[in-house]
Amino acid sequence: MRAPRLDDPEGIDIALVGVPFQLGSSVRLGSYEGPSAVREASRNIRGHNTATEVSPFELANVADMGDAPHNPLDRLASLTLIEEYFAGLRSHGLRWIACGGDHTITLPILRALANETSLAFVHLDAHPDTWGRLYGEEINTGSVVRLAVEEQLIDPHRTVQVGLRGTLFAAGDRARTEEMGIRCITYDQYEELGRDAVIAEIRQIIGDHPTYVTFDMDVLDPVYAPGTAGPEPGGLSMRDAQVILRALSDSNIVSADVSEIAPRLDPVGLTALNAAQVMFELLCILAVSVERERGNRAPETVEA
Amino acid sequence: MRAPRLDDPEGIDIALVGVPFQLGSSVRLGSYEGPSAVREASRNIRGHNTATEVSPFELANVADMGDAPHNPLDRLASLTLIEEYFAGLRSHGLRWIACGGDHTITLPILRALANETSLAFVHLDAHPDTWGRLYGEEINTGSVVRLAVEEQLIDPHRTVQVGLRGTLFAAGDRARTEEMGIRCITYDQYEELGRDAVIAEIRQIIGDHPTYVTFDMDVLDPVYAPGTAGPEPGGLSMRDAQVILRALSDSNIVSADVSEIAPRLDPVGLTALNAAQVMFELLCILAVSVERERGNRAPETVEA
Amino acid sequence: MRAPRLDDPEGIDIALVGVPFQLGSSVRLGSYEGPSAVREASRNIRGHNTATEVSPFELANVADMGDAPHNPLDRLASLTLIEEYFAGLRSHGLRWIACGGDHTITLPILRALANETSLAFVHLDAHPDTWGRLYGEEINTGSVVRLAVEEQLIDPHRTVQVGLRGTLFAAGDRARTEEMGIRCITYDQYEELGRDAVIAEIRQIIGDHPTYVTFDMDVLDPVYAPGTAGPEPGGLSMRDAQVILRALSDSNIVSADVSEIAPRLDPVGLTALNAAQVMFELLCILAVSVERERGNRAPETVEA
Amino acid sequence: MRAPRLDDPEGIDIALVGVPFQLGSSVRLGSYEGPSAVREASRNIRGHNTATEVSPFELANVADMGDAPHNPLDRLASLTLIEEYFAGLRSHGLRWIACGGDHTITLPILRALANETSLAFVHLDAHPDTWGRLYGEEINTGSVVRLAVEEQLIDPHRTVQVGLRGTLFAAGDRARTEEMGIRCITYDQYEELGRDAVIAEIRQIIGDHPTYVTFDMDVLDPVYAPGTAGPEPGGLSMRDAQVILRALSDSNIVSADVSEIAPRLDPVGLTALNAAQVMFELLCILAVSVERERGNRAPETVEA
Amino acid sequence: MRAPRLDDPEGIDIALVGVPFQLGSSVRLGSYEGPSAVREASRNIRGHNTATEVSPFELANVADMGDAPHNPLDRLASLTLIEEYFAGLRSHGLRWIACGGDHTITLPILRALANETSLAFVHLDAHPDTWGRLYGEEINTGSVVRLAVEEQLIDPHRTVQVGLRGTLFAAGDRARTEEMGIRCITYDQYEELGRDAVIAEIRQIIGDHPTYVTFDMDVLDPVYAPGTAGPEPGGLSMRDAQVILRALSDSNIVSADVSEIAPRLDPVGLTALNAAQVMFELLCILAVSVERERGNRAPETVEA
Amino acid sequence: MRAPRLDDPEGIDIALVGVPFQLGSSVRLGSYEGPSAVREASRNIRGHNTATEVSPFELANVADMGDAPHNPLDRLASLTLIEEYFAGLRSHGLRWIACGGDHTITLPILRALANETSLAFVHLDAHPDTWGRLYGEEINTGSVVRLAVEEQLIDPHRTVQVGLRGTLFAAGDRARTEEMGIRCITYDQYEELGRDAVIAEIRQIIGDHPTYVTFDMDVLDPVYAPGTAGPEPGGLSMRDAQVILRALSDSNIVSADVSEIAPRLDPVGLTALNAAQVMFELLCILAVSVERERGNRAPETVEA
Repeated sequence: MRAPRLDDPEGIDIALVGVPFQLGSSVRLGSYEGPSAVREASRNIRGHNTATEVSPFELANVADMGDAPHNPLDRLASLTLIEEYFAGLRSHGLRWIACGGDHTITLPILRALANETSLAFVHLDAHPDTWGRLYGEEINTGSVVRLAVEEQLIDPHRTVQVGLRGTLFAAGDRARTEEMGIRCITYDQYEELGRDAVIAEIRQIIGDHPTYVTFDMDVLDPVYAPGTAGPEPGGLSMRDAQVILRALSDSNIVSADVSEIAPRLDPVGLTALNAAQVMFELLCILAVSVERERGNRAPETVEA
Repeated sequence: MRAPRLDDPEGIDIALVGVPFQLGSSVRLGSYEGPSAVREASRNIRGHNTATEVSPFELANVADMGDAPHNPLDRLASLTLIEEYFAGLRSHGLRWIACGGDHTITLPILRALANETSLAFVHLDAHPDTWGRLYGEEINTGSVVRLAVEEQLIDPHRTVQVGLRGTLFAAGDRARTEEMGIRCITYDQYEELGRDAVIAEIRQIIGDHPTYVTFDMDVLDPVYAPGTAGPEPGGLSMRDAQVILRALSDSNIVSADVSEIAPRLDPVGLTALNAAQVMFELLCILAVSVERERGNRAPETVEA
Repeated sequence: MRAPRLDDPEGIDIALVGVPFQLGSSVRLGSYEGPSAVREASRNIRGHNTATEVSPFELANVADMGDAPHNPLDRLASLTLIEEYFAGLRSHGLRWIACGGDHTITLPILRALANETSLAFVHLDAHPDTWGRLYGEEINTGSVVRLAVEEQLIDPHRTVQVGLRGTLFAAGDRARTEEMGIRCITYDQYEELGRDAVIAEIRQIIGDHPTYVTFDMDVLDPVYAPGTAGPEPGGLSMRDAQVILRALSDSNIVSADVSEIAPRLDPVGLTALNAAQVMFELLCILAVSVERERGNRAPETVEA
Repeated sequence: MRAPRLDDPEGIDIALVGVPFQLGSSVRLGSYEGPSAVREASRNIRGHNTATEVSPFELANVADMGDAPHNPLDRLASLTLIEEYFAGLRSHGLRWIACGGDHTITLPILRALANETSLAFVHLDAHPDTWGRLYGEEINTGSVVRLAVEEQLIDPHRTVQVGLRGTLFAAGDRARTEEMGIRCITYDQYEELGRDAVIAEIRQIIGDHPTYVTFDMDVLDPVYAPGTAGPEPGGLSMRDAQVILRALSDSNIVSADVSEIAPRLDPVGLTALNAAQVMFELLCILAVSVERERGNRAPETVEA
Repeated sequence: MRAPRLDDPEGIDIALVGVPFQLGSSVRLGSYEGPSAVREASRNIRGHNTATEVSPFELANVADMGDAPHNPLDRLASLTLIEEYFAGLRSHGLRWIACGGDHTITLPILRALANETSLAFVHLDAHPDTWGRLYGEEINTGSVVRLAVEEQLIDPHRTVQVGLRGTLFAAGDRARTEEMGIRCITYDQYEELGRDAVIAEIRQIIGDHPTYVTFDMDVLDPVYAPGTAGPEPGGLSMRDAQVILRALSDSNIVSADVSEIAPRLDPVGLTALNAAQVMFELLCILAVSVERERGNRAPETVEA
Repeated sequence: MRAPRLDDPEGIDIALVGVPFQLGSSVRLGSYEGPSAVREASRNIRGHNTATEVSPFELANVADMGDAPHNPLDRLASLTLIEEYFAGLRSHGLRWIACGGDHTITLPILRALANETSLAFVHLDAHPDTWGRLYGEEINTGSVVRLAVEEQLIDPHRTVQVGLRGTLFAAGDRARTEEMGIRCITYDQYEELGRDAVIAEIRQIIGDHPTYVTFDMDVLDPVYAPGTAGPEPGGLSMRDAQVILRALSDSNIVSADVSEIAPRLDPVGLTALNAAQVMFELLCILAVSVERERGNRAPETVEA
C-alpha cells in the first residue's frame, strides 16, 4: 500500500505486519507466502476510500513493519515468538493489522492483547474454528477460537461468526459453538436475514466494547479467494465483505488480522488482491479509531 | 470424498463413477480429465452437509467405483460400453452419480435406466441440448436431450431446463424445445421469477415421479466454472446451484450426473472444486432417497 | 465471432477493430495483447442473442477489419495514426466496435467522430478518467474523459458514468467530475438505486442523442475480469453488464469500444471471454441502430 | 511465419497445413490445438536461415493453407478426409509441411503420396511406432510406421529412426522393428556414434531417393518439448534437431510433418516455439529441393 | 508406474513409498505434494527399460505402499514415525524407494537401516548437506549427511557426492565435508573428469558394499527440475542421471530415495516427470539386486 | 541477493540497479517487470561463489539501489533520465550491474560511461543489435550496438559477440556487423571452436582494456530463458554462460548489464532465476576488479 517500510515502532499508530506461519495446517499449504503476495498486490491501492471518504494515511501514521519473527521448523516456538513480537508492539501503544499465514496466528496475537477484560470478537470465516486437536496437537488452525474462549481472551457472548457453511467432520459443531455462547450466522441465515440485519446484529453484539476482527479469506466464495486452505463454495462476495467492514467504522476496533492466503493455489492472484483490499478496509476503520481516540484523549480504552 | 474405492457392486447403495469420455465434442476439449480432477478436488469434502443436516455416508453405503469402461478411439463403441456398465450397476440395484466427460454421457446412462415409464428430468444447463447432428453425427454433446425424448427415455412434460442463455446457431431453438413439451427457464426468466418460484415449479413438474438430474457445469457463470466446453457469461452462482439441489431432498431422485469439467482450461481448479461440491449435494439427496426407500421396503422403485 | 476478415471498408456496416495500444499506461501492462485474445475467445460466440432475439449478422454487414495502425515506440504518433484510421472508417459511413488496448484509445476515436454536436457518452468504468497528467504527459489512460470534455467531443451533461469505486490518489475526484456536469453513479449508488433505476437514468440522460459507449473491463468485479490494469474489488457482474447494454437497444449508438484486457494477467481467460461477450452485446445494439437507420433512410446520422 | 494465408493451391510450391486430429491417441490429449499454437509461435520467425544461408520465401512460393478437413467425432472418416485433402494438394504439384495433431496423421499423408516406388523415410521419434492395435483399433498413433511398411508406402530398407528410448510395454519392440528392415538408432547409440556419424548414416540410407521426413516432438528431451503425449527424458536437444535437419539440405525431400504438440500441457510455450522452428528448418530444405527441381525441369520427381 | 497399491508388506520385494514431509525446510516449500505428483507422472512409465533391457516388474514383486505416516504439525514426531515405518518394512525383508518430501527424510530412513556396518552412500545433490543447525534446529534438510556420518549410519570413506555447485553461506563447506572423509565431486570436476571417469570412481568407492542411493532433484540443472527448494543453475542433465544410475546395476543397492519435488513451483510438471523416471531407474537397479540375491540365497544381505 | 537496499551512493562500490524500461520493443513485451522478478529470484543466492572461491560481498560494498528513474509514457525522455542517473553513479565512482528492461537500456548506460577512449565490449546475445530503425525510430532494442559504435562509445575492434543465431529479416546482417570491425561468433562457430577457444579469443580481444559486458538473456537456449522477447532455439546453456563469465575474472570490467527478462512469459520462473545467477557471476568479476583496483590505488580507471 505504499506505506513506508519501518522497523522502529516509535511514532507509528498502525502497523501492517506479515506473519508467514503455516505450521498449524495440514492441507493445501502455502499461506507462508501470503504476506509477500499481499504486499505486492497492495501496490494498486491508493490512499483514499471513496466509499467511506476516509483517507487512513492522513488520519494515522501507518507503516509496513515487515514480517513477525517465527521459526519455520518449530510450531510452538513460533507461537511464542509471534506472541512476544505483538506484545512488544502493544507496549508501544500500536494497533496493527496482521497478515497470515494460517489462521492459527490469531491465538498468539490475542494472547499478546490479553487483559482483565476479554475482547469482543468479529469472526468472518466459513468455519467455526472451535474444533479439537489435529494430529494430536492442541493448537491448530481449527482450534483457535475455542482456545481463545477457554483462555478468556475473547468473550463468547460478544463474539459473532459470519459466513459459516460447508462440510464438517461431524454434525454438532455449530451446536457446540453456540453452547459456548457464540452467535453463529451461517450463510443460509445471512441470506435469509439480509446483509443489513446481519450488520445491525454484529454492531449490537460488539457495542462499544474493544473488539478484534479476524478475517479468514475462506469466508468469501472461492471465486473471490481460490487460494485458501479450505475453500467452501457458496460464500460471501467481496462486496459483502466491504459493506460489512465499512459498517464497523464507528466501532472500537483494537486490531485485526487477515489470514489464509496461499498464492500458489491461485495463479491469477485474486486471493491476494482481495486480501489487500480487506486489509485496506480494516486499515480505514482502525484509522478512524485512532483519530477518535486521539480526540478523546482516552488511550486506556484502546489498551491494545 | 474419501469414499472407499471398490469395484464390486455388492452391498453398495450409491456409486460414484467417472466417465472420461469426450468423443461427442469438437471444441474446447479436455473433459476426459474431469473425473480425476474432481476426485482430487473432492478430498476437501467431508461427510456432513451443514445446510441440510444430512450425513450421506451414514445413510447409505457409498463407494467410488472408478471409471466406466470406454474406448477412447471409438465414439459409438464407447457409448455401448458405458450403457452396458450402468445397466450392470442397475441390475445390482445401485443408484449412482456419474462424473463426465462431456454431456453426451447422459444418453447411454439414460438408456441403461430405460423402463416402461419415462423418467422425469431436471436439466441444469446453459444450452437445451436439443440440437441436431454435429459433423453429420447423430449422437453428440448437443443432441442428447432431443434423443432422450425421441427414445422415450425421459418424459418431456416432466422435464425442466434451468439456466438457458447464450448465443445459439440460430433463432428458434427454444421454441422447438418448448414444442417438445419441455419447460425452458432461461436465465432472464430465472431472475425475473426468483429462485424460490423456480424451485417450486421444478418440484411441481417432477412431483414424486422417478427423476434423473443432469448438471452441465456451464449452467454456472464462467467465474464458477471456467473449465467447460461452452462457457456462457451471465449464469447461475454456486449458491443458486446449492439451494436448488437441496430443495430436491424429498424428491424421488434415481440417479444423476455432472459433466463438462475440463481441468486444463482452469488452472486455478474452481471448476473441479465446484463440480465436487455439486456431486456432494447430489449425493445427499440420493442418500435421503435411499433411506426413505429402505424404510418403505420398496426396492423396485430404485430401478426406475 | 466468425465474422469475415476484411480490409476494404466498402459495403461494411459495422467494423470490429483491434487497437493494441498500451502506451498510455504505466502499471500492469499487457493490454496490447487484448485484441488477439478477444478474437480467439470470440470463437465461442455464435450469431443469435437469445435474450434480445437479435441476430446481428443478419441485420448488418459485419467484418473483422484487423488492427488499427499504431507505432509501438511512439505514443503521440500512435494517437494520430489511430485517429486517422477511424476517421477513414467514418468517411465510409461505418460504425465500429474498437477493442483495446488501454483506455487511452477512446480519445483518438472520439476525435475521429468530432462534429458540431458533442456526443452523448455512456461510460462503464471503475474510474472517472478525469485525472490530470501522468508522468507529466497530458494524454494518458486516466485523463481521456476530461480531455474529451475539454475538446467538446462529448457533452458532459449527456454523460453518465456507472460503477465508480475503489481507492483514488486523493479525495475530490468525484466532486470535480460532477462539477464538469457528468452524472457519476458509484457502485454504492448502483446498489442502492437498483439496476432498473440506473438503466432508466442512463436512458433519460442520453435520450435519442447520438451516443458513444465506452466499456472499461475494470467496471466488472475482478472475478469477471482479473486481467485488467486497475482491478477494483466489489464491482458489477457480467449479468449486470449484459442487462445494461441490452437496455440500450433502441438508443442511438454510433460506435463503441471495450478496453483494458491484459491476457497475461489472466491465465484462465475470463477477461477475454467476457470482453468478447461485451463486444457481442455492443454489436447487437449497433446492428439494431444500423437497421433502424436504413429504414429511416437517414445515413447522415451515422456520421455523428 | 508470416506466410500468406491462401486457400487456392495454384501457384504455391510449398504448403504449410495444420492437421488438428487427435483421435488416434488415448493419453495426454491436446494435440488438436497444436496447429493454432504453432502458427502463433511462428510469428517470431523471419525469412532467413543464418546457419544455412537459405531464404526459403525467396526460393519458393510458400503459403499457410489453413487446416486440413477432418471430422472431430469420427476417426476413420477423418483419415479419409485428410488423405483426400493431401492427394488434392499433390495433384497440383505441391510439397507441404503438415503440423499435427497426433502422429497418426502421417499414415493418410503417406497414402496421399503413394506411388509405384516406396518412399525413403527419416523418422525422428522416441518411439518406433511399429506397435499393434490400441483399444482394438488398427490405426493409431503407435502403429503408423508398421502400417506404412505393410502398405508399401515407405521402404523399410530406406527407413531410419533416430532418438528411440524410454519404457515400452514389452521387450522385443526394437528387435521386431529391425526385423522389418528398419535402421533403429537409439539415443544410447546416438551418443556413442556421435551426431556427425549418425547424420552420415541417415544420408547414406536415404541417398537421392524421394524422402519423407516425420518429426515427432517427443524425440526431443522433455525440457524442449514438455507438451507432448509421450515425453521421454534423456532425448535430443533442439541443437541436435537443427543440425540433423540442416544436413538434409541436398537430399530429395518430398514433404514432411511435425506432430504431437499439445499446448495445454506446456503453459510456457516451448513446445510450440520449437515446433515452429523445426517447421522452418524443414521449410528451408524443401525450398532448396523446389529450387533444384525447377533448375532440373524435373517436376515428376516432385510427385513422389 | 501402474504398480499395485498394497498395504500389506507380505510377499513384496520392493516398496514404493511416499514421504510427504517438508518440516525440515524453510524456503520454497511444497515438497509435501511431491509423492502424489510423482505417482500421477509415473503413469507414463511402462515396465521395460530399453537401455538396460531390465523389466523390473518381472524380476521382483513391486508395490506402491502409499505414504509413510507422519505428523504434519510436528517435525520430531514425524521423524520418529517415518523411522518406525521403514524399520517395519525392513523387518519384512523389503527394499524400498522413498519419494519425498524434503531431503530430511533420508535421516530417519537411514536410522531404520542402521546396522553394525555403516552403509556406502551415493549422494547426487547440488549441496553437501553437511551444514549445521537451521533456526537452531539440529535436524534439517541441510544437515542430514553430517548427522548420518556422526551417527555412523553411513561410512564417509564409502560416500561420494556428485554435482555439488552453487552459492553457499560461507567458504569452507567443501573442505569441511572432505575432512569428514567424503569424496566431493563438484560439477566443475564432473565436467573436467568426464562422466565415464566419475562413474568408475563411484563404483570403486562403493565396491560391493551395501549401498544406499539418495537423489536430490536439485542435482539436475533447473531446466530439468525447476520445482525444487534449492535450484542451482549449471547442473546435471537427465541423460547424465540416467547413465550414472544405470551404471550401478551390478552394485549392492539396499534402498534409495528421491526427494525435493515441489509440484506447485513447476506448473509444467517436468520435475515430477523426471523424478518418476529417476525412481524407475532406481527400481531397475534394485530389482536386479533382488534377483541376484534370490539366486544367491543370501537374504540377510538385504537387511544391510 | 540479500544486498542492503540503499539510495545514497556514498560508500558503495557496486550498485545493483533495475531499469524497468521496455519502450524500445514492439513484440513479446513484459521486460518492465524484469527487475522485480530478478530481485525476488535472487533470494536464493548466497554470498560465496563455490566455483571461483570469490565472496563478492566481502571484497566490495554492494547495494541494491532500486530502480533507475524513467518515464513509462515517453521513450526518449526515459533514455535521458537513465543516462543521467548512471552518470550520477559514475560521478561517485561506482560500478554497477543494471538489470533490464529491454536491451535498449545499454545505450544510455554506455553514454553515461562515455570517455575519450571507447570501451571494449563483450556482447552475449542471439542477435547482433546492429539493425536500423524500428517503426521509424532510431533508438530501439535492435540498434543499440550500431549506435554505440557510431557514437564511439565502444570500440568495434575490441568488441566480440557470442551466440549469434536465428532467423533475421534479411541476409547480410552478419557481414555488415563484421564490416564494422566486430568479431561475430555464431553458435555454429561456438560449437565448432569449442568453449575454451572462444574464451581465449574473448580475452585476447578485450585484453586489459576497460570493458563493458552486456548479457541479453536470449543468448541462452529458450529452455533456460523462455521469458524473453526474442527466443532463438539452439543456444548456450547456463553452464556455458557461467564458465565464460568466470573466465573474465581477471579482466578489467567496468560495469555490466543483463536484460530481456519478461516474467509473464515464463510462469515457471527459470528466466529470472538464471538472470539472477548471471548477475551474481557478473558481481563476482566486478568485485575482483574493485579489489584489484583498490590495491593498485588507481580509482581513475574505475571511471572508464
